[in-house]
Amino acid sequence: MGTTGFDAGELATLLDGRWAGIRKQVRDALDGVPLQPGDDLDTESHRAQTLEQLRLLAKSGITDLGFPVAYGGRGDTGGAVVSLEMLAGNLSLMVKAGVQWGLFGGAVVALGTERHHERYLRDIISLDLPGCFAMTETGHGSDVQHLRTTATYDAATQEFVVHTPHEAARKEYIGNAARDGRLAVVFAQLITGDKSHGVHALLVPIRDEAGQALPGVRIEDCGRKAGLNGVDNGRLTFDQVRIPREALLNRYADVDPDGTYRSPIASQSKRFFTMLGTLIRGRISVAGTAGSATKLALEIALRYGDARRQFERPGTGRETVVLDYLAHQRKLLPALAKTFALHFAQEELVSTLHDAPGGEREQRELESRAAGLKAMSTWHATQTIQTCREACGGAGYLAENQLAQLKADTDVFTTFEGDNTVLLQLVAKGLLTNYKDQFDDLGTLGMAKFVADQFVGAVIERTATRSLVQRIIDGSGKDDILDRGWQLKLFDDRERHVLDGLGRRLRKANRENAFEVFNNAQDHVLRAARVHVDRIVLEAFVAAIERCRDRRTAALLNKLCDLYVLSNIEADSGWFLEHERITPRRSKAITEAINALCGQLRPHAVDLVTAFGLPRQWLTAPIATGAEARRQEAQHAQHAHETS
Amino acid sequence: MGTTGFDAGELATLLDGRWAGIRKQVRDALDGVPLQPGDDLDTESHRAQTLEQLRLLAKSGITDLGFPVAYGGRGDTGGAVVSLEMLAGNLSLMVKAGVQWGLFGGAVVALGTERHHERYLRDIISLDLPGCFAMTETGHGSDVQHLRTTATYDAATQEFVVHTPHEAARKEYIGNAARDGRLAVVFAQLITGDKSHGVHALLVPIRDEAGQALPGVRIEDCGRKAGLNGVDNGRLTFDQVRIPREALLNRYADVDPDGTYRSPIASQSKRFFTMLGTLIRGRISVAGTAGSATKLALEIALRYGDARRQFERPGTGRETVVLDYLAHQRKLLPALAKTFALHFAQEELVSTLHDAPGGEREQRELESRAAGLKAMSTWHATQTIQTCREACGGAGYLAENQLAQLKADTDVFTTFEGDNTVLLQLVAKGLLTNYKDQFDDLGTLGMAKFVADQFVGAVIERTATRSLVQRIIDGSGKDDILDRGWQLKLFDDRERHVLDGLGRRLRKANRENAFEVFNNAQDHVLRAARVHVDRIVLEAFVAAIERCRDRRTAALLNKLCDLYVLSNIEADSGWFLEHERITPRRSKAITEAINALCGQLRPHAVDLVTAFGLPRQWLTAPIATGAEARRQEAQHAQHAHETS
Repeated sequence: MGTTGFDAGELATLLDGRWAGIRKQVRDALDGVPLQPGDDLDTESHRAQTLEQLRLLAKSGITDLGFPVAYGGRGDTGGAVVSLEMLAGNLSLMVKAGVQWGLFGGAVVALGTERHHERYLRDIISLDLPGCFAMTETGHGSDVQHLRTTATYDAATQEFVVHTPHEAARKEYIGNAARDGRLAVVFAQLITGDKSHGVHALLVPIRDEAGQALPGVRIEDCGRKAGLNGVDNGRLTFDQVRIPREALLNRYADVDPDGTYRSPIASQSKRFFTMLGTLIRGRISVAGTAGSATKLALEIALRYGDARRQFERPGTGRETVVLDYLAHQRKLLPALAKTFALHFAQEELVSTLHDAPGGEREQRELESRAAGLKAMSTWHATQTIQTCREACGGAGYLAENQLAQLKADTDVFTTFEGDNTVLLQLVAKGLLTNYKDQFDDLGTLGMAKFVADQFVGAVIERTATRSLVQRIIDGSGKDDILDRGWQLKLFDDRERHVLDGLGRRLRKANRENAFEVFNNAQDHVLRAARVHVDRIVLEAFVAAIERCRDRRTAALLNKLCDLYVLSNIEADSGWFLEHERITPRRSKAITEAINALCGQLRPHAVDLVTAFGLPRQWLTAPIATGAEARRQEAQHAQHAHETS
Repeated sequence: MGTTGFDAGELATLLDGRWAGIRKQVRDALDGVPLQPGDDLDTESHRAQTLEQLRLLAKSGITDLGFPVAYGGRGDTGGAVVSLEMLAGNLSLMVKAGVQWGLFGGAVVALGTERHHERYLRDIISLDLPGCFAMTETGHGSDVQHLRTTATYDAATQEFVVHTPHEAARKEYIGNAARDGRLAVVFAQLITGDKSHGVHALLVPIRDEAGQALPGVRIEDCGRKAGLNGVDNGRLTFDQVRIPREALLNRYADVDPDGTYRSPIASQSKRFFTMLGTLIRGRISVAGTAGSATKLALEIALRYGDARRQFERPGTGRETVVLDYLAHQRKLLPALAKTFALHFAQEELVSTLHDAPGGEREQRELESRAAGLKAMSTWHATQTIQTCREACGGAGYLAENQLAQLKADTDVFTTFEGDNTVLLQLVAKGLLTNYKDQFDDLGTLGMAKFVADQFVGAVIERTATRSLVQRIIDGSGKDDILDRGWQLKLFDDRERHVLDGLGRRLRKANRENAFEVFNNAQDHVLRAARVHVDRIVLEAFVAAIERCRDRRTAALLNKLCDLYVLSNIEADSGWFLEHERITPRRSKAITEAINALCGQLRPHAVDLVTAFGLPRQWLTAPIATGAEARRQEAQHAQHAHETS
């Protein structure tokens, strides 16, 4: 028990969670390895540095976690996600690692079979074979089911002919493509005879060992980006490129030598979304990394806010520490509370992924959860890092203080691995259709019909923590804003109400007006997804507190949880008041309670954010590492001397 | 009258406003001059390029606007602000120009006298003398009245000794300091005999003609920043640097050869804030430039959104243009409406500055207006450019599409020329004290006493447009959300109510609890300032529509104004419902009306944003200039061919 009034060790253990061992291993493995991001490098130098660092990472022994034991891996899916998110201090490195071992390597594992595993996995793990994940096209970013690249089987030579039919079908923003990748997992419409069987993945070599583009492959450079310039994003265009029949990643479908197409999954759409579902790890990793970047930004801003002084406090002869100002607390502490909430929700999500849900419905729920949490975590990162930059003033704008790079690097997180606005619509559709397996195939019109026929009302899905939550709700007799049962019920109720209202609106759709009805309700659709995720995240926070074994630590977490809940209600108070879920009087009380909680949590802010245990080497900002504090102290000593 | 249903020429004329001549002149002067920002430059190359471009700008004949006619200028203060904001496509250039001709040159004009004007102004205008504005210190950013650099008069040699007493007193983030500046306007505590007379400005040479730092001057480099890397920000430390007595910028105070201090303004604080007040142009320029950057970002995102298609629309065989989606309209069109509103408010502000208010109270109102509008415009820029980036997906992340640079460059606008959170507090204090001239000198304790004694209730200040606004309010019989009178009254009423409530809270303060009472109300203080600015901005929009001579154009502007108002109410619906200013039913109607307005404005979106008339050379993003549209058309033609 420290002087902080809570058990920092217990909190750290709780936050480290199920993969505490992996987290420790990563901290140890990274310690002393020169992985800091480059300073003021041009794009080519930054890419070269990042590749060198990727090689160091490959040697560190933490990049094999997600691969099968049989090929030198450790078969630890959750560990792979957790280890990746701990690279928060060098996001170019994180993304390049994610492309190599997550997207590229992960696709070979998940969509390939023994012939691919045997041939490639060891080289992928060791980085002897750098690769790409070539899905997105210029014309089709979000609507991947309709991408245009083709892979046409030629029975005469037993080859696939991979081809880009027009410029908009070129592969776009492909990580590792502009400089380093040699082999690409290419998603294309598979055609045998004259029949298209939908999107499949194939392994297409794009560069020789000397780094030259192979015949028929045109490689362009996406050039400078807002951030992540250590990652070489490029464009791939294929001109009748021939690859052997065995290059098809054939876990879910195969083509016989004579061109006969076979798949255990009859529906083309279901097959496609089954394949996509196996790749969900990338999306979950982005959510985790967004969380880590947010934590790092908050640690910098809170440490600076805890040392920086500005404006003399009357009667004290000293200036006020900026984190003592309510406005400063209001900027940073609700964001900290939400970061805790998302951390626990992410841990739950990773656990579910790791334990691999058995049924189709469970898989759909996992995918929906991943989509929703990715959207909310990445938006939270964008907003929070922005706020941290502003809270550090001019110092926050200097590269040396890290926030500039964190902001620029994470900015695209809201876009890649699924555009957030599109993802939230998937979440809402899942809720409306109760995760029926046709869901992704429905399209607007089918959706309308489906909802009209079958939607009977919002179903609050069961989660691992649902029984605990129900117990708290049932046990709550108090109608108090700090009563957890009241809070949980309020979030439940909001979700049900929004979803039921949405269902009623969409049932008005028919063949003629389906697009208009859906489009006019789009803001309602997005709200439904958001309040659903809010509820899931709150439940994860509540469950985590239940696991805490130290009374004082739990008390502090309960205050953080209150701050998360009440900030959420305050931000959405228009809805709660409009729907008469809270009274004007209660709304005012909530604002006051938030201010009070900020004051109560403020003394613990730095300890709380430190407990996330980010590897210490990532914290390099002079404003966070004490230089600023020492400078200020010197100034005050001097000032005291001058005026004495 | 075009096919768009409104008169684009009339709209452009209205937007060009009072300085239409200057705007045209700048467009012509910049045409063909190679001022595009560099691509993928390291910091030193970027700085070199920006200095070269600054030289081209000096030759273009538009940088002399703000200087007195007697020294080769044109004496057009408003024109100087407007011309600067038109550099939106290269913000490093804009900021470096702002430092040289706005802050540095402007301070010599405003705080110096003939001896300084005669000696320096021609060289400043021609850029033969590059200079710095050295106010901010490491320890004191926002609280400039308490900066620590000293300028001690030595009567024996008739010199000032400029000195940095400790590290936190070094000048920080000084533009032009790291590389190019030769002379600096340095703000320091002026000491004669043993008496300090508060902060004054002095001209201190920092580099010789060869670019070497002068004896006693230590120059450090702030290094890489999030953006604006064409500007060489640096740190200045002075070690007993001697400058002649005449180097004091002596318009408001002077020191006789024997050390006698003289000033026409008795109060030290009033003198300081009078000096500061003459420098208000810099803050107003930042608001204007933030507006221009926002317009450029919106033009890029709207042009792309108007061409980009994604997801097939059932029954049409074509994909939907993304700007037809309600969610996309919701992202961009309320931001466009607010950009119009802020544009007209900015024009009003520049006009007031240009016409130089006579009285002290009017000057205070101008300063308050500048502070408030700077805060709201720069936050709007940060949010809108972020949204535009996300709305353009992966393409928005590529440097070639400009949004990355716009975001990175404008990010610090919320901080420099006054931290927004601090500025809003100044606005609120002005409102509470009704712009009494002591206001800046009060401090927390004095403020509390002052409010307790004198605050009698919110006063809605008179503006140029107030009589028009009152007429509309008085003439309004309708209680309809689209009735302008109702809207104006609602904004008025919100401001009064928030301010009155704040006054009542602050009156509880006494000597013992003053800090706590103020700090606990800080969110209330910020809200008061925000809703005040919202009201001012709305009134400016209303007045502009009144000036519009074309009926159909006015009708379109009225829709934009409705969207501005209703989006503002929706975002603040928690307050309006909590205070029973709108009913739940009306709140729902407002959401529906916003969606309807988005649909009505959508066909005009590109024409509306184009009417701002940004110099065409700034629009270089391939996604905005048609390449993307052509690519998509090609894709669809191909697709139609394939499936035919």
